[in-house]
Amino acid sequence: MEENILKDRPIAEASALDLERGHVADVVEHLNEQEPEQAAGVVAGLPDERVVELLDQPEFEDAAEVVANLPLDRAATLLSGVSADRATDILGEMDEPQRSQLIERLDSETRTAVAHLAGYPEGSAGAIMTTEMVSVPANWTVAQTLDYIRQVEKSRETIYTICVLHPETKALLQTVTLRRLITTDPSAPVLAAARHSKPVTVKPTTDREDVARLVSKYDLLAVPVVDERHHVIGIVTVDDIIDTIFEETTEDVQKFGGMEALDEPYMEIGFTSMIRKRAGWLAALFIGEMLTATAMQHFETELEKAIVLTLFIPLIMSSGGNSGSQATSLIIRALALGEVRLKDWWRVALRELPSGLTLGAILGAMGFTRIVAWQLLGLHDYGVFWILVATTVGAGLVGIVAFGSLAGSMLPFIMKRLGFDPASASAPFVATLVDVTGLVIYFSIASVILHGTLL
Amino acid sequence: MEENILKDRPIAEASALDLERGHVADVVEHLNEQEPEQAAGVVAGLPDERVVELLDQPEFEDAAEVVANLPLDRAATLLSGVSADRATDILGEMDEPQRSQLIERLDSETRTAVAHLAGYPEGSAGAIMTTEMVSVPANWTVAQTLDYIRQVEKSRETIYTICVLHPETKALLQTVTLRRLITTDPSAPVLAAARHSKPVTVKPTTDREDVARLVSKYDLLAVPVVDERHHVIGIVTVDDIIDTIFEETTEDVQKFGGMEALDEPYMEIGFTSMIRKRAGWLAALFIGEMLTATAMQHFETELEKAIVLTLFIPLIMSSGGNSGSQATSLIIRALALGEVRLKDWWRVALRELPSGLTLGAILGAMGFTRIVAWQLLGLHDYGVFWILVATTVGAGLVGIVAFGSLAGSMLPFIMKRLGFDPASASAPFVATLVDVTGLVIYFSIASVILHGTLL
Repeated sequence: MEENILKDRPIAEASALDLERGHVADVVEHLNEQEPEQAAGVVAGLPDERVVELLDQPEFEDAAEVVANLPLDRAATLLSGVSADRATDILGEMDEPQRSQLIERLDSETRTAVAHLAGYPEGSAGAIMTTEMVSVPANWTVAQTLDYIRQVEKSRETIYTICVLHPETKALLQTVTLRRLITTDPSAPVLAAARHSKPVTVKPTTDREDVARLVSKYDLLAVPVVDERHHVIGIVTVDDIIDTIFEETTEDVQKFGGMEALDEPYMEIGFTSMIRKRAGWLAALFIGEMLTATAMQHFETELEKAIVLTLFIPLIMSSGGNSGSQATSLIIRALALGEVRLKDWWRVALRELPSGLTLGAILGAMGFTRIVAWQLLGLHDYGVFWILVATTVGAGLVGIVAFGSLAGSMLPFIMKRLGFDPASASAPFVATLVDVTGLVIYFSIASVILHGTLL
Repeated sequence: MEENILKDRPIAEASALDLERGHVADVVEHLNEQEPEQAAGVVAGLPDERVVELLDQPEFEDAAEVVANLPLDRAATLLSGVSADRATDILGEMDEPQRSQLIERLDSETRTAVAHLAGYPEGSAGAIMTTEMVSVPANWTVAQTLDYIRQVEKSRETIYTICVLHPETKALLQTVTLRRLITTDPSAPVLAAARHSKPVTVKPTTDREDVARLVSKYDLLAVPVVDERHHVIGIVTVDDIIDTIFEETTEDVQKFGGMEALDEPYMEIGFTSMIRKRAGWLAALFIGEMLTATAMQHFETELEKAIVLTLFIPLIMSSGGNSGSQATSLIIRALALGEVRLKDWWRVALRELPSGLTLGAILGAMGFTRIVAWQLLGLHDYGVFWILVATTVGAGLVGIVAFGSLAGSMLPFIMKRLGFDPASASAPFVATLVDVTGLVIYFSIASVILHGTLL
């Protein structure tokens, strides 16, 4: 989180950026800082080969606008040069009728690939895979494979993981890495460079987060995507995985913060989009929280009799929300990392209940001490029954913190079970849930302890 | 987030795991599920080469205990075979005097590397780098380089990124990828396979999150770590980067949830460790939240006169906390992704203030309508001055939600400025901050609007 990233930059911000020979990532960053029309002007003046490199970067935010601003024929030539998965994304961001006009003009190979890729749901392996990988039949030698790689390298997104197919059925038999390939005897069959174990593969419908976990677990550079007959239909590469993890994390944190995911950088999203993404959840939580007013109205007689009870409402409610927020954040990550599965909910409940009671006891003791101390030190007068008030607050904290931990840990499971992202069980959501219940717990405890005295 | 990850597993959970030939990641998972002593017993029976593979996995949780349970000489031989960065981690988890005894017995190359690596602070590039990379002098040809790679491959963690050094000074001139190397004319000098641009490098002290961002931005498979004289002292590989991102994300989410990072899987951490990680922040927030009781005591006279005001305290306070939590989550991610820097705080403030006012106006209108509706429908009687009460609540919401957004967006900047992780600006922290201030805002607005009527 240090600023020293600047010092490590290969190209100093101050020096003039070489648009034709500088690192594409730096040029993309430069273009992202400009208005789309300006960026289109710059791009139009660059040679085709360079523009293809730029468009290939998923980080290039205005790629679709830039392509839309180019003459149709040049745009089609350029998109045919871009990797098919990226071309699909760019076309997906364009408006009709331009998109269809462009698709018509693509070379037939790209057109087929784009039509295919556009069909996979967002967030699936199919949507992030590339179709440009290297596949060879299993009856080839290592030398043949290496020669073939040298020939096709330019048009492949990755050559570090090579799919070895059954010579007849074309089904995937094994994957071999370039590393093993160049260190294996060139005259040996290509399968000699493979591992013993079955290759790690995913389906086109596999969630991209699951793909990321597999890549992380097995330290892979790419994972083949296979259909039911075990035919390779694409490959997910490690750099797409890294982008996926960054994106998913941002979405999860924003959802956990109690809003819809922005899907755009904070400094670039428009004012109305931002309000829309935030107001929805805020209003929903507000309506939920209105129940606190209803609960308070219900206890209005008690409140009038024992106004001293109101003094501790914010303290008690927030403690429940805080312990709930802790539990929720723990379970969201445990679910995201696959440490805990849906069926483990009761194990989690059995951990959270004692944790919640212990944490509640700690805060309860602190609350009790606070009231007793203030009373004895003469800092505030909580009335004749101050010791009963202190007991009510202490007991209320135990109950509410325990309830908060339990509710906070169960909410992500419930969200997941209902088919939502567990991260939608946000800190504000848990707090709202605990606030309403917490009030009822507090006043119920008060009516038992203070019965016949204040109430 | 689907359960279908199970179906994609290369080795079915039910089938017997082949400890000697199965995928190391699966064997590690199997060992992690056992008690350390049990795992040590299993490992002791495996051939050395296999044990080295297992110990090389950072995911192997009880590696240190397992090594400690082996005879000292075998342990030293094994550790000498493990990559130096991993050996350093394992030794770091062991107790004295065993650690020193083992270090003494390591082969001299490993011992020097370990001594070196142990000196870098946790979370830095130096701490996650490996010293086992391929470096060649710039006066070699492509063919010479490839031959060398084939010779040393077994002892190198990565061969996909090769460092090309100045033949005399040994300073890093360029990096070349294996991909470029095998597609370049073998008789050409190795530098012919390099890019034009300067190589991306980091310093040993660079934060690992910054390294992750560079790897993501430039789609790298490895980044050389260089000292002041531009000598390569190690290399950070993409699989370490993926592990880093997962770990950092988990830490960030847990901190944002209002607790210390667990550093261990949820289902495995001990009860007391978990209570300790959670109780600290919970108690600190509780003490902060005690100020709400102090604030309420201060306004006790107003409360007695206008008990109707208390009904809306939870509603108003939570709305401020929720809008604050949204803003905080946005800024934490924007800072983590480098979209926003410390010096941009005022830009963010200029975005959050109008956003907060707009969101506050939406909730204020809802709150106002709620009170007027309940009054007119006869659901509850808010007294003679109900319209003034409704106005107070509406105006209070505008003020508190706007304050919440502003405070929530500034807190991560303040944390970062003070040298803490911005993620420590947790949802509960923001909520506590806004609760106390919110009460003051609410009662101040009430005393203006209700002056001469209820108050």
